[in-house]
Amino acid sequence: MTRSLAWDGDAVVAVDQCALPHEYRMMRLDSVDAVIDAIVRLAIRGAPAIGVAGALAVAISAARHTRGGVCDEVAVRADARRIAEARPTAVNLAWAVRRVAERIPAGPEAVLAEALAILAEDERLNRAAAEHAADLVLDLCGRRPLRLLTHCNTGRLATVAWGTALGAIRVLAEGGHVAEVLFGETRPLLQGARLTAWELAEAGIPHRMCVDSAGPTALAAGLVDCVLVGADRVCANGDVANKVGTYPLALAAARAGVPFVVVAPESTVDLSVPSGASVVIEQRSAAEVTTLAGAPIAPAGTDAYNPAFDITPGDLVTAVVTENGVQVGLKEAS
Amino acid sequence: MTRSLAWDGDAVVAVDQCALPHEYRMMRLDSVDAVIDAIVRLAIRGAPAIGVAGALAVAISAARHTRGGVCDEVAVRADARRIAEARPTAVNLAWAVRRVAERIPAGPEAVLAEALAILAEDERLNRAAAEHAADLVLDLCGRRPLRLLTHCNTGRLATVAWGTALGAIRVLAEGGHVAEVLFGETRPLLQGARLTAWELAEAGIPHRMCVDSAGPTALAAGLVDCVLVGADRVCANGDVANKVGTYPLALAAARAGVPFVVVAPESTVDLSVPSGASVVIEQRSAAEVTTLAGAPIAPAGTDAYNPAFDITPGDLVTAVVTENGVQVGLKEAS
Repeated sequence: MTRSLAWDGDAVVAVDQCALPHEYRMMRLDSVDAVIDAIVRLAIRGAPAIGVAGALAVAISAARHTRGGVCDEVAVRADARRIAEARPTAVNLAWAVRRVAERIPAGPEAVLAEALAILAEDERLNRAAAEHAADLVLDLCGRRPLRLLTHCNTGRLATVAWGTALGAIRVLAEGGHVAEVLFGETRPLLQGARLTAWELAEAGIPHRMCVDSAGPTALAAGLVDCVLVGADRVCANGDVANKVGTYPLALAAARAGVPFVVVAPESTVDLSVPSGASVVIEQRSAAEVTTLAGAPIAPAGTDAYNPAFDITPGDLVTAVVTENGVQVGLKEAS
Repeated sequence: MTRSLAWDGDAVVAVDQCALPHEYRMMRLDSVDAVIDAIVRLAIRGAPAIGVAGALAVAISAARHTRGGVCDEVAVRADARRIAEARPTAVNLAWAVRRVAERIPAGPEAVLAEALAILAEDERLNRAAAEHAADLVLDLCGRRPLRLLTHCNTGRLATVAWGTALGAIRVLAEGGHVAEVLFGETRPLLQGARLTAWELAEAGIPHRMCVDSAGPTALAAGLVDCVLVGADRVCANGDVANKVGTYPLALAAARAGVPFVVVAPESTVDLSVPSGASVVIEQRSAAEVTTLAGAPIAPAGTDAYNPAFDITPGDLVTAVVTENGVQVGLKEAS
């Protein structure tokens, strides 16, 4: 399928996510600084996507710092450090940069080959996790037109292609199993309204948006057959850190008896963290909450509580699905 | 205290809620059409407030249609009908108009006296319910600096003065019992961001706003001692209809073991409705969700699911408090 992020000989080509939904345009980023800038201003967002972009940026650096067959390793490692620090919280960025940086001594072609391997893996692993999750959903819900609820953006824009939870929804839609996808706008930064709405329209999948607090209403009203979300970190006990707004959906799904399925790459499972209590929740600026598209929505000086993520306790999670299938150790899915 | 809505000899004087939070200004409405217009465009909102405004508009009509001591009852009743239909869903408007219309045969002074009685009652009943609720909160939580969570706007702007849930918070703050009030912005129409933030700043009560889906995060993180909300209808079995976003707070409060207290006038309790399943949830336009302050936040053509209210099952409600104290028949509060 169309890749949101690709390699074009000597540059990263990626969808400008800041321009969506008003304009779909590709950026051509042929320097380390251009890639860093795109990551910092969220023109490229989504943990898998920024990991791949960061790896390719190291390849750009290696090519630029090679003359007469000799690679200036010090200069490339300095660039790699700057790239890895472009955003501090997404583990994929540091992980991908570290992985390609190990190839610097082997020369720019080796660095590029490793970055391209990560790019190719991302699409393949997402697709595999999405297919496992789609199979599970059909097992749980039956082969009928399903009404699915998701949150934030976990689609092709957040990854190289396919996506995780939204990837599973794509697989289900290809099989003719989707009646409607409901999704929250995802305040404060509106990834649902801006990106998921756009992706679902692009894919021709029937969809409706709601304010985030209406997802639980839909679950209580019997309008949802299954909830599908992504994850930023899955703890050893099955607790799931994900975009703020995930936890209330899980509470309402459990009360309504609706399956709550998490779709994520295996690298998101972090067995070193025993439970959600050990996960540091990123607190972001009040301005994200008190303004919208730059315009104030509250009185000047209003302070805000703005956690970017929440923790869904493992007992509310029906299953975590990765490229290896349903995770062992979590609540039995069926 | 300052009234949000008052009578000025021959006109309704009310806060223009459309202008908040950017400007605090009073409107002087001296005709039936001016009051209807203010209610339709939500310059006056909040079920108690529009009830009082509607009653006073009937008094304006009665005065205008009286000449030489003779009141044109047909003309006044026609106005009363138009006023009652200005907004179809708020029961207080029809109830208040009906109550004053019964006095039309007794002449314009009798109509005005009845409308002024409703105005005076509103402040008194809210204040009583707020004081009962504050006492209950102190019983439940102890006399310590409390961190309270509320939703939407249930303050002096939604009523003549004081308010219901926010009125209880005012009482608690006057007693020095409030450390902080957290409140959701209340998408889609931002009554929390626009009105509750303004009221809490006006009252000098420490406060922070959050996106609606972060309220459950705060409850799970142990940042909230008590949830206080209003109600649009309380059913015979204790189920509560209130602004969308209330139900997820109740789910999260129950899981966290935090009291969830509903404050409303006795007239909100509707024993003719057995449970929340019988309450018709108003569905509003998709544009409220897909735009913000007139600007689109989603791709053109995006449809939305937009229930204005949700149902909180009675088993999640610690207590419903009215001017008569804690309601009988609901879960024991302490």
